[in-house]
Amino acid sequence: MAESPAQNSLLKSLEPLGEGTPLAQQIFDMIGHSKFFDDFNREDIQMLAGFMQIYRAEPGGMIIREGDIDDYMLLIIQGKVDIVKTDKRGAIQPMTAVGPGMTLGEMSMIDGEPRFATCIAVEPTTFAVLSRDAMVRLIIEEPSLGAKLLIKLVTLLSQRLRQTSSTLLHYMER
Amino acid sequence: MAESPAQNSLLKSLEPLGEGTPLAQQIFDMIGHSKFFDDFNREDIQMLAGFMQIYRAEPGGMIIREGDIDDYMLLIIQGKVDIVKTDKRGAIQPMTAVGPGMTLGEMSMIDGEPRFATCIAVEPTTFAVLSRDAMVRLIIEEPSLGAKLLIKLVTLLSQRLRQTSSTLLHYMER
Repeated sequence: MAESPAQNSLLKSLEPLGEGTPLAQQIFDMIGHSKFFDDFNREDIQMLAGFMQIYRAEPGGMIIREGDIDDYMLLIIQGKVDIVKTDKRGAIQPMTAVGPGMTLGEMSMIDGEPRFATCIAVEPTTFAVLSRDAMVRLIIEEPSLGAKLLIKLVTLLSQRLRQTSSTLLHYMER
Repeated sequence: MAESPAQNSLLKSLEPLGEGTPLAQQIFDMIGHSKFFDDFNREDIQMLAGFMQIYRAEPGGMIIREGDIDDYMLLIIQGKVDIVKTDKRGAIQPMTAVGPGMTLGEMSMIDGEPRFATCIAVEPTTFAVLSRDAMVRLIIEEPSLGAKLLIKLVTLLSQRLRQTSSTLLHYMER
């Protein structure tokens, strides 16, 4: 995982609330029921929070923009985010909406390719940002927690790939 | 990643060639150009080979069967493998063919869900098997190599998810 030039320019337009540690308890409470973090204990979350930055977006605030080159994933702590994508006719198509405990943007954090879709806050939204550099540091400084996070990412992507492949087959067989 | 009951029954029908270490040089030579292992050095491959079991399948030999519950991924060292899937009408549909250096079966190794497709050797094929248990041991005993492997898996799945999502959108927009 080479370091890549990241713009992360959208983040500069949002309100930074600082490093995640002071919010670790809140993160733990809010994502306690999240599938992504269901086997992270309080200590894991406390440690992870130290590698994350917290931001806040107002309704209408763009958090991720399709086509951008940047390298963070985010965890929604509070609020609601719409995911939309531009179709080939240039129209904006809603894909899905996600809430607390959900993660966004893992693909670009991992592979450095342009953002696949746009994410827009539809409520006042607080989220934690994990950059690629922070993940690399996490893996080096806390290998056991790093492995836990990587296993989570691998599992999440595998499940999404299964779902997407099944949906694709459904369309192809029609 | 909890350990799960694995049948791995198909492997019992294939010819085992033992643990990977004696084949580490061959593995290294053959997958030297493989994208999956492009930043694994000789020492990494040597270590990884110790966690893998080598098998051989004759043409027509089934390596992975759609719907099976088992928990290994495999790396093709030599030969060629067809990937096919049963469509909803019960007909066998070819999906793709893969050769040396390619990996198969990561999704079930990771998430323990049933196999998505069937893999059949079309040439005499030698492949290395990495089970979920072996991967867990690798992560615990060799955290740095474990992280390297997990990062590879995460990257691979992310790229496949992008491709599959793009293809799906293409079909949905038609």
